[in-house]
Amino acid sequence: MDRSELRESIRTVADFPKAGILFYDITSLLALPEAFRLCIDEGSRWIGQLNANKIAAIDARGFLFAAPIAYKMGLPLIIIRKNGKLPGPTIKKSFVLEYEKETVEVQGHDISTGDRIAIVDDLVATGGTLKAAAELLAEGGASVEHVFAIIGLSFLNYRKVLQEYQVETIIDYDS
Amino acid sequence: MDRSELRESIRTVADFPKAGILFYDITSLLALPEAFRLCIDEGSRWIGQLNANKIAAIDARGFLFAAPIAYKMGLPLIIIRKNGKLPGPTIKKSFVLEYEKETVEVQGHDISTGDRIAIVDDLVATGGTLKAAAELLAEGGASVEHVFAIIGLSFLNYRKVLQEYQVETIIDYDS
Repeated sequence: MDRSELRESIRTVADFPKAGILFYDITSLLALPEAFRLCIDEGSRWIGQLNANKIAAIDARGFLFAAPIAYKMGLPLIIIRKNGKLPGPTIKKSFVLEYEKETVEVQGHDISTGDRIAIVDDLVATGGTLKAAAELLAEGGASVEHVFAIIGLSFLNYRKVLQEYQVETIIDYDS
Repeated sequence: MDRSELRESIRTVADFPKAGILFYDITSLLALPEAFRLCIDEGSRWIGQLNANKIAAIDARGFLFAAPIAYKMGLPLIIIRKNGKLPGPTIKKSFVLEYEKETVEVQGHDISTGDRIAIVDDLVATGGTLKAAAELLAEGGASVEHVFAIIGLSFLNYRKVLQEYQVETIIDYDS
């Protein structure tokens, strides 16, 4: 399987989770072992070139890709969750996403000064959640230069929002 | 690393997410690549003996273990989510968990008649969510005989609730 076949295996669903949103459904990738393997192997290869020492996973679909990458690479896995899901002590960061306030949270003891963390998610849309996650990890003393996602919606300008970071996606939609 | 060392690496947190609950924090396993590897390898080994043809992951911490197991085994991965997170068409099942109504949901096209599905979660407590998930998959025509979790709280009697299914945990707490 190659990238163009992977692209064909992504199902899009109109008006989900609300009217006007075109949802990119990654469950169709999960159902195809060859497609899923390509995603994990590409992520591991790219992150491996960058000398990250830890992988951070974004709640919840990011867990599906970050966990196998961490397993394959033998790297510690940090989870970044929505507010209230992790027992303390934690570090939190609030941000505005599509007019609603959101909060991301991480356990402080998972991060050490000098860590070089690669953040993994399923999809980058506006980049808002990933930027907040990166800033959260930086507050803990880590350096975050790497973001990996399976799908990028570059027409939503995430590359500008995440301009401080190296971002790699397998499939990008520019319109 | 062996099972007893794995047990020592699990942090417990009192009164989370609410008073009276002792929370078993699997993030400490994720942070130790050797511990995480043991969890995934044990799960894959056990499920491999049982001829499952698909892996089902329970939202959200179950994703962290189910995804690497599916990757390692080369099996399709189905995700079972809380209500409203998956685009349709879906099958839903409601149940009562600790006096609150919960709903689990799966995409119907992920399941075929004759599928033998292994469900993976991080922790089995009362078994209520896993039982609902198994019944949901059965409604879709699949047979579910296998449940794998890293941690089991057998003092909450999940073995009775899940008596129709083979359940395997790596670490079990009987009190």
